[in-house]
Amino acid sequence: MGGLENGETNNQNSSLSTIKVTKTSLSPDSIINLDQGDPTLFEPYWRRMGDKCTVVIGGCDLMSYFSDVSNICWFLQPQLGDAIKRLHRVVGNAVTEDRHIVVGTGSTQLLMAALYALSSPADRHPVSLVAAVPYYSGYKDQAEFLRSGLYKWAGDAHTFDEDGPYIEIVTSPNNPDGAVREAVVNREEGKLVHDLAYYWPQYTPITQPLDHDIMLFTFSKCTGHAGSRIGWAIVKDKEVAKKMTEYMVISSIGVSKESQLRAAKIIGVLSEYCQHFMTADSENFFEYSSSILKERWGRLRNVVKNSKIFSLPKYPQGYCNFSGKYTDPNPAFAWLHSKEDIDWESLLREHKIIARSGQRFGAGPKYVRISMFSPPEMFNLFLERLSAIIVNTNGNVVT
Amino acid sequence: MGGLENGETNNQNSSLSTIKVTKTSLSPDSIINLDQGDPTLFEPYWRRMGDKCTVVIGGCDLMSYFSDVSNICWFLQPQLGDAIKRLHRVVGNAVTEDRHIVVGTGSTQLLMAALYALSSPADRHPVSLVAAVPYYSGYKDQAEFLRSGLYKWAGDAHTFDEDGPYIEIVTSPNNPDGAVREAVVNREEGKLVHDLAYYWPQYTPITQPLDHDIMLFTFSKCTGHAGSRIGWAIVKDKEVAKKMTEYMVISSIGVSKESQLRAAKIIGVLSEYCQHFMTADSENFFEYSSSILKERWGRLRNVVKNSKIFSLPKYPQGYCNFSGKYTDPNPAFAWLHSKEDIDWESLLREHKIIARSGQRFGAGPKYVRISMFSPPEMFNLFLERLSAIIVNTNGNVVT
Repeated sequence: MGGLENGETNNQNSSLSTIKVTKTSLSPDSIINLDQGDPTLFEPYWRRMGDKCTVVIGGCDLMSYFSDVSNICWFLQPQLGDAIKRLHRVVGNAVTEDRHIVVGTGSTQLLMAALYALSSPADRHPVSLVAAVPYYSGYKDQAEFLRSGLYKWAGDAHTFDEDGPYIEIVTSPNNPDGAVREAVVNREEGKLVHDLAYYWPQYTPITQPLDHDIMLFTFSKCTGHAGSRIGWAIVKDKEVAKKMTEYMVISSIGVSKESQLRAAKIIGVLSEYCQHFMTADSENFFEYSSSILKERWGRLRNVVKNSKIFSLPKYPQGYCNFSGKYTDPNPAFAWLHSKEDIDWESLLREHKIIARSGQRFGAGPKYVRISMFSPPEMFNLFLERLSAIIVNTNGNVVT
Repeated sequence: MGGLENGETNNQNSSLSTIKVTKTSLSPDSIINLDQGDPTLFEPYWRRMGDKCTVVIGGCDLMSYFSDVSNICWFLQPQLGDAIKRLHRVVGNAVTEDRHIVVGTGSTQLLMAALYALSSPADRHPVSLVAAVPYYSGYKDQAEFLRSGLYKWAGDAHTFDEDGPYIEIVTSPNNPDGAVREAVVNREEGKLVHDLAYYWPQYTPITQPLDHDIMLFTFSKCTGHAGSRIGWAIVKDKEVAKKMTEYMVISSIGVSKESQLRAAKIIGVLSEYCQHFMTADSENFFEYSSSILKERWGRLRNVVKNSKIFSLPKYPQGYCNFSGKYTDPNPAFAWLHSKEDIDWESLLREHKIIARSGQRFGAGPKYVRISMFSPPEMFNLFLERLSAIIVNTNGNVVT
């Protein structure tokens, strides 16, 4: 206890040798917020694309509530539906043939729609909603905040032992820990919602086109356009698609047409470049974004390896059908674990870092989730501060 | 019973003499849907404005979840907040100084947010939600569809006699019947939400700037841009604004930035033209839109006056501070009443007209709501068919 070992200090310094702080808006006193996964780090790619993704919307365009009255999801702009199907074909991550597309204000609104569609007003008891720990913190909030009589939060899928119908959310790759997942409960009365927000080549190898009953995707994590609030569900069952659409109508009468138009344009360009410029890495968004994340993960692992008590999950390489090579997963969040009993949230706050405690994800306070999406200079400062924490804790190991 | 009187037939014909069907996409067999209030009839004005309201959005714009982290409603684009405040100052329909603006995916989502903000999770019983009959049909759906334990639909404000806290929605001018309204229950434990979607000069005289606790407005009915799904709440209390924002975050993590940007642009141009071209009627959107509605109401009243059993509400003229003259209300919906026991919905369907039965609004089936927003040739066909119905029913009066 007390004092620092020189060797460790040196290691820490060497691990930071590659950090170049190029912007100056952050000072040593700045608080850095790594709580949310705001994907602005992909912005330079879209800037480089110049006018190719620009949309021009006239004052008299897109005025109606309706987009296509012949579609179950009548507020889905047909060009967005087409763009989504093309992208999934090009990437090979999901089956869309003969499936219904329901668009939402982010996949967040679509999860609410799925809960509404999969629960039954005729049932006397609310249906249980479960997800395996660690689960995305938003699910619990969404299930509980209106105290619905249709569904209730029932926590960890691993320990769920109630009889009767249930809904399990399968998040793969998982938020917060990046793990590739499958359903846990596996009972006949269960209904599944697959949240595939991160099943894109920059985060994980694309091993197969998935074909589940309800699959949720979001523009935010696919291309980084979080401000557009566009998500989509790929739905097998017609009646479920109808009820999800009904939820969207009652709660917001559809989804922004401007965002849909822009998402269609950007997704269209993305598909085009993937199909025709696969060999030119710099032209391909997924190559660009995975190279940024890969570099960040390398640097983070380099810092953490100097710690005696902190660790990161290890991910197996996989063959990615999209890129045609073996790739490492590079999750959007780092899920830091401590062997010691520490209160991550307080510890990080002392070092002016805001992150989300493992407790919010149904895991203990020994875990913390850190966004890998921060702007470059913020990520650099984070590594600097984490190195300092590691130096301090190595000198104060309790065990 | 049976047969037609010539005089009435002639009257009916003369009332239709001004109808000119210029488009040909509708045939005598076409079903015309007047159920929704899709405000595409204002499109020609915005077309005429040419590029003045055009927005250009680059591929790298608006990527973040965040708009202004210093604002309670951190996903509100500052230029939209500014544009909204300016428009209310120019029109004089609402006080915005020292008020919080919360943006929503239409005012529909904001009503849900208001219910969440005004109810209390600590209460053992859900708070009652009331609105005076006839009330907008969507309120009941919104209050009931998730079977929330926070609030419950309690129906007509006029007959509400439960003790304890309640929320009353005051819709003024009212949907469906166009009446100017005030709160009905008026008890100390009541909280009010004012839905002012139609408190704009094309629908009703602007008699004063309103200054209620929560006032909801929507881009859809103000300018006719329903596809953008932009609504806003003007909120007095900081804690209520915070909780409404919380609702938006949990249910959809904010609101489309593209729509916000475009709404800011269009509302800005609207204000500009109102301030600087008030005398040139053709340049002013509110003059344009009220002249269309006024003409439609004139023609509709002309048709209905020939009926022995159907009637429309009468509205008092009022001095409009915005236009500086006495004006007639021209509501967005016609609220047709029958003296006879008829099933409006079936009767209209026989004539291939879809409209919303009074029963959906808490009124009897002797009432029906008809959108005044239909495209011109559809409105013409509606008047033709209504004239035919009137001729038939006049020949078959039961009393």
